Amino acid sequence: MSKAIFYHAGCPVCLGAEQMLISAINQDKYPLEIVHLGEQPDRIGEAESAGVNSVPALTLGGQVFHINFGAAIADLKA
Amino acid sequence: MSKAIFYHAGCPVCLGAEQMLISAINQDKYPLEIVHLGEQPDRIGEAESAGVNSVPALTLGGQVFHINFGAAIADLKA
Repeated sequence: MSKAIFYHAGCPVCLGAEQMLISAINQDKYPLEIVHLGEQPDRIGEAESAGVNSVPALTLGGQVFHINFGAAIADLKA
Repeated sequence: MSKAIFYHAGCPVCLGAEQMLISAINQDKYPLEIVHLGEQPDRIGEAESAGVNSVPALTLGGQVFHINFGAAIADLKA
């Protein structure tokens, strides 16, 4: 079973994507973990390693899907 | 029931997103229609009206989610 991870930063664009994913993803198949990089900055490195360049983004099955554009990941490194 | 529509143009980025959506979306809840705008250019107007600026993109519940970037919709108007 592959886990889906949604990275966001609390921005309005992020929240819209989050609601869509929570509602639409088949979580029996892809349990969805939601990571707020503003609140969990220790996970920024993991997101970058997965190929996340901006948020909101979804990683699933080794691929990265940037969904619309909220913020560049570089801007989350305070 | 809300329908999800995935607009694409056959590009490699599009195909990756298409596979993810087919696999991950709960289609019992959101039946997924896939529209290839290169093959169905008569639907470009509909996509633009929905707010689609580039492909691949997903419309769901009145919102547009641009997933990564394959091509600008303007470039699909041959």
